[in-house]
Amino acid sequence: MSQELILNQRVVLASRPQGSPTPENFRLEREALPDVQDGQVQLRTLYLSLDPYMRGRMSDAPSYAPPVEIDAVMEGGAVSVVEQSRNPAFKEGDLVVGQTGWQTHSLSDGKNLMQVPKDLPSPSMAVGVLGMPGITGYMGLMNIGQPKSGETLVVAAASGAVGSVVGQVAKLHGLRVVGIAGGIDKCRYVMDELGFDACIDHKSEHFAEQLSEACPSGIDIYFELVGGKVFEAVLPLLNQHARIPLCGLIAQYNAQRLPDGPNYLPLLMRTLLTKRAKIQGFIVYEEYYHRLEEFMQAMVPLVKDGKVKFREDVVEGLEHAPDAFIGMLEGKNFGKLVVKVS
Amino acid sequence: MSQELILNQRVVLASRPQGSPTPENFRLEREALPDVQDGQVQLRTLYLSLDPYMRGRMSDAPSYAPPVEIDAVMEGGAVSVVEQSRNPAFKEGDLVVGQTGWQTHSLSDGKNLMQVPKDLPSPSMAVGVLGMPGITGYMGLMNIGQPKSGETLVVAAASGAVGSVVGQVAKLHGLRVVGIAGGIDKCRYVMDELGFDACIDHKSEHFAEQLSEACPSGIDIYFELVGGKVFEAVLPLLNQHARIPLCGLIAQYNAQRLPDGPNYLPLLMRTLLTKRAKIQGFIVYEEYYHRLEEFMQAMVPLVKDGKVKFREDVVEGLEHAPDAFIGMLEGKNFGKLVVKVS
Repeated sequence: MSQELILNQRVVLASRPQGSPTPENFRLEREALPDVQDGQVQLRTLYLSLDPYMRGRMSDAPSYAPPVEIDAVMEGGAVSVVEQSRNPAFKEGDLVVGQTGWQTHSLSDGKNLMQVPKDLPSPSMAVGVLGMPGITGYMGLMNIGQPKSGETLVVAAASGAVGSVVGQVAKLHGLRVVGIAGGIDKCRYVMDELGFDACIDHKSEHFAEQLSEACPSGIDIYFELVGGKVFEAVLPLLNQHARIPLCGLIAQYNAQRLPDGPNYLPLLMRTLLTKRAKIQGFIVYEEYYHRLEEFMQAMVPLVKDGKVKFREDVVEGLEHAPDAFIGMLEGKNFGKLVVKVS
Repeated sequence: MSQELILNQRVVLASRPQGSPTPENFRLEREALPDVQDGQVQLRTLYLSLDPYMRGRMSDAPSYAPPVEIDAVMEGGAVSVVEQSRNPAFKEGDLVVGQTGWQTHSLSDGKNLMQVPKDLPSPSMAVGVLGMPGITGYMGLMNIGQPKSGETLVVAAASGAVGSVVGQVAKLHGLRVVGIAGGIDKCRYVMDELGFDACIDHKSEHFAEQLSEACPSGIDIYFELVGGKVFEAVLPLLNQHARIPLCGLIAQYNAQRLPDGPNYLPLLMRTLLTKRAKIQGFIVYEEYYHRLEEFMQAMVPLVKDGKVKFREDVVEGLEHAPDAFIGMLEGKNFGKLVVKVS
């Protein structure tokens, strides 16, 4: 069968960042997409998800996943449409989600693709509230956080993809929910739209005092996405048997060396000991993806009924992905950041 | 019934230490023991246990337990003999263990006393390998550590009461067990007598390298009793899904302020995240004392068969308790520190 020549546009890693990434660390390329082979599908990317973990893949420091190689396509999850299929599990027009990278087209053997329900209001939800960030928030909260009615939960990046799910689901379980976000607009959204009990601006001069006032009964669950100064303000407020699910540290991803002292490590350890508290790191792909169905059964009705709301920050065009990503690491996005690719 | 006058000798908290405790923080007193009332027992202390947690009770910083008041008897667990009983649950000559404090005699309503089996080789075991330290080690290891055959466990203070139980029980479960102790004699004892696979001297100039060499497959469980420099050396060796039961931080109990930088807190958080690791603080009295029977059923046969060995460092005379306690915080004891009171 003769195939039409497809020009694939892709963003590759040009160099590894020192500190904050810059546009020079990325390069936009065009290449002819190879022909589809037996067993493969040809995909056209609709929505590329931009997520903080990608900063880790740009570095070659040891981590839970290997880094992106220099000159290789940046890693990323995306929703795509099947344009050609030589794999019996997929047909033309199917919507799928997978780690297909920062590019307009891709080929896949189908092994790590998941079908996306066609009745979603927007397919982009499959990389947001009903995708990796949603599963991360829901599973980390329910399994490590173990929320109990009447407790207090704090989550930072509260207007973002993970934080908004964590807070709203905790609220549905009867917790007092305090968000942390950057700026008045985000805080207002978190309280007025997402229904959190309070939201504190981490840029405020009196952040630590305000957080303490918003948590009159202390903190039982701190869902950790950011690290840095926020965590230092949370520490003295932790209650006995506090639980800290840990799945992100965006505030420290660009750090090139350990911060100056004092050394807070002994204070953390003392707090964990005297409060009998728990911190547990997790990576959603490995820990919880086999429980995707459980997640979807719980979350799809909540989203459809408007009990879990979400906000997307949509950037148009793959060529803008690097700038959008760099901005996200500085907290410039407002809601789940996705790139509308085609 | 006429009662004999009993002169009770006791060590009270004279002042709160600034940094390391000094003899001046303690005061030895004599007082007439009040008469036994209905429902009470009169106890004569045989063995007083000295344990690192007592340093916390000397300070009025917030903790999981209230501090000892100034001029009050120092808190501590001890094995005693019942000298008089006006409580039907106890009779003269019974051996009991309870938090009766640093004193030669005490009165108790019996509520928090436990009977000590009379067939123990020494009643002091009831405050050691078969008492609080043993339960701490066993329960923390089994419940939070979740040991699996073939894994590697590291425990510091390895010749001490908790560490020696942790390591020996882990060894019986098929783990590679690496101890850390202060000085060649302790290290030799830990390897030759307790059967650990290796033991590293934390006073060695090349401690971190030696620990790394002793753990060629990384560390799956680090049982945390000490904190400080040892923990910093452990951090880079942690494996994926490492577990860190945390029940003591003796290396930092005397600290008066946070240490100088760099700040290792972000490194710890990054490690927990990328390794999907867990730290969990616990206090044995609250978490596990209701499972005492389970512990005794597991541990008594192991101790009787010599599969779990233990060493006691016995100091004679209550008047030497303060010096012995101060020395313990500097690592001068060799084995479980107990004071033979009478």
